[in-house]
Amino acid sequence: MLILIVFYIAICVEAVTAALSAGRRNMDWLGVCLLACATALGGGSTRDVLLGHHPLPWVENPHYIIVVCCAALATIALARYLDRLKMLFLLLDALGLVVFTIIGCNVAIEMGQPMLIVIVAGMITGCTGGVIRDVLCNEVPLLFRGELYATVSIFTGALYLGGLSLGLQQDLVVIVAVAAGFTLRALAILRKWHMPSFVYNKDWH
Amino acid sequence: MLILIVFYIAICVEAVTAALSAGRRNMDWLGVCLLACATALGGGSTRDVLLGHHPLPWVENPHYIIVVCCAALATIALARYLDRLKMLFLLLDALGLVVFTIIGCNVAIEMGQPMLIVIVAGMITGCTGGVIRDVLCNEVPLLFRGELYATVSIFTGALYLGGLSLGLQQDLVVIVAVAAGFTLRALAILRKWHMPSFVYNKDWH
Amino acid sequence: MLILIVFYIAICVEAVTAALSAGRRNMDWLGVCLLACATALGGGSTRDVLLGHHPLPWVENPHYIIVVCCAALATIALARYLDRLKMLFLLLDALGLVVFTIIGCNVAIEMGQPMLIVIVAGMITGCTGGVIRDVLCNEVPLLFRGELYATVSIFTGALYLGGLSLGLQQDLVVIVAVAAGFTLRALAILRKWHMPSFVYNKDWH
Repeated sequence: MLILIVFYIAICVEAVTAALSAGRRNMDWLGVCLLACATALGGGSTRDVLLGHHPLPWVENPHYIIVVCCAALATIALARYLDRLKMLFLLLDALGLVVFTIIGCNVAIEMGQPMLIVIVAGMITGCTGGVIRDVLCNEVPLLFRGELYATVSIFTGALYLGGLSLGLQQDLVVIVAVAAGFTLRALAILRKWHMPSFVYNKDWH
Repeated sequence: MLILIVFYIAICVEAVTAALSAGRRNMDWLGVCLLACATALGGGSTRDVLLGHHPLPWVENPHYIIVVCCAALATIALARYLDRLKMLFLLLDALGLVVFTIIGCNVAIEMGQPMLIVIVAGMITGCTGGVIRDVLCNEVPLLFRGELYATVSIFTGALYLGGLSLGLQQDLVVIVAVAAGFTLRALAILRKWHMPSFVYNKDWH
Repeated sequence: MLILIVFYIAICVEAVTAALSAGRRNMDWLGVCLLACATALGGGSTRDVLLGHHPLPWVENPHYIIVVCCAALATIALARYLDRLKMLFLLLDALGLVVFTIIGCNVAIEMGQPMLIVIVAGMITGCTGGVIRDVLCNEVPLLFRGELYATVSIFTGALYLGGLSLGLQQDLVVIVAVAAGFTLRALAILRKWHMPSFVYNKDWH
């Protein structure tokens, strides 16, 4: 139940980040909505397509599309006020990341996938939406370049799966994994933690 | 029957637009064919992958691949004469858009999808090919930026679905939806109608 | 058996090329691993998603992910020594291309696909990984632009399928197709053979 509420917050926050990216590219209003849908619903869709798990979330629940489009259109209307809320959005985005991850893990667990695939399914659910957004905006995906984002998703998934395999109660494990993943992401934002980069300058072609 | 003829025209026109995009990037002849296939067959493939509807159109009818490659190679041979036909191609492309949309709607209707998903399936069929072309050519997809294109597809799909749900005869509804969608797109081209854009200049990163 | 060994070499070589591309974009260590997985496992995944053939290779054998990540991390550690091995890697990559192609053909043959789809399945398996890598690195895919790469894949697939349909022994056909495809690719690299390009400079938009 709580997961469901946070899920709706999460797809709205993803829609907002996508709409702002669309605005930086001067997309039209429908383009903003389409990019928001591809971003907010793309993670779960990619997971389900790769795992062969049909119907996709938005095919089963078409109202997700309407929620995402409303969030995107609201972003157009309210963009000028969003600057002050930057930190709030980053924190909501972090919450969305960990909740998406746990939802993705649950899908793979219900399919009886092995542990590594469960963690990968969580990471795909949490992270692929942003990759699709950046590819459609013609940018190198942020995911690959900087902050602890995929790392947080893997950490959350591993913690969740570890807790479950210890036989702990699911609700407790969800709360601990969400809290720990959220804290790690928030600390990474506040303290500007980065993964080390791999810099290679030679061109083989 | 008529739909089938227009379908072949439509994949050929998509192949031509893809081949010209490929030529602007100096792709080689096989690259031109590959980009043409990804563009002309990518919309229906994306729809079927997302809906879990197998086999994909070109897997069931492999000769589509040959038709598209022939159209792409003919474009290479005849590119110098195409300039004069620009308006003809824009109109054929508009016809293709509405026919692709209706074919996509029909697939979703046969699967028993809800109305919103039927319209989305039509739009994905009509519009995704061009998005794939632009991503592979390293451009921000035109679809998101300018003309009434996705709008026409949604309008056509809604009209088609509305007509069907009123219990009208299918052939009649197809003709009306195609005519109305085509007229809207042609007007949008001729009168340079645009969706309003969302412009946002602040960078959060 | 031999195919399996070469398959592992091939995914490692694809991981190395992806890791070097990632290094040119200053991606972080996890980004390097993710790009390597998308590149090395993306071809087979694309084939299986398009053909509706589940589970995907890495879902059935999750240790592929670990092998690819190890190869990517080893590339980060050893990048400075790789320059001298450029020709070795190009040849291993050529070997991987033809082996991926034959594995892809086999999947389609086992599904009972028609001949054209078998060859397309082989080409998708061999070539799509590099396209995914280039799109995620925000480049026009090399595949479309230059060397005989997709050509080699189609040639290998056609030879393999031709040999099988003549009723020759499978092992023999595999060896001949791999040898011929590898030789063609190696000659293309050494003699800088190129497909003719299609150059078109007019902008319709």
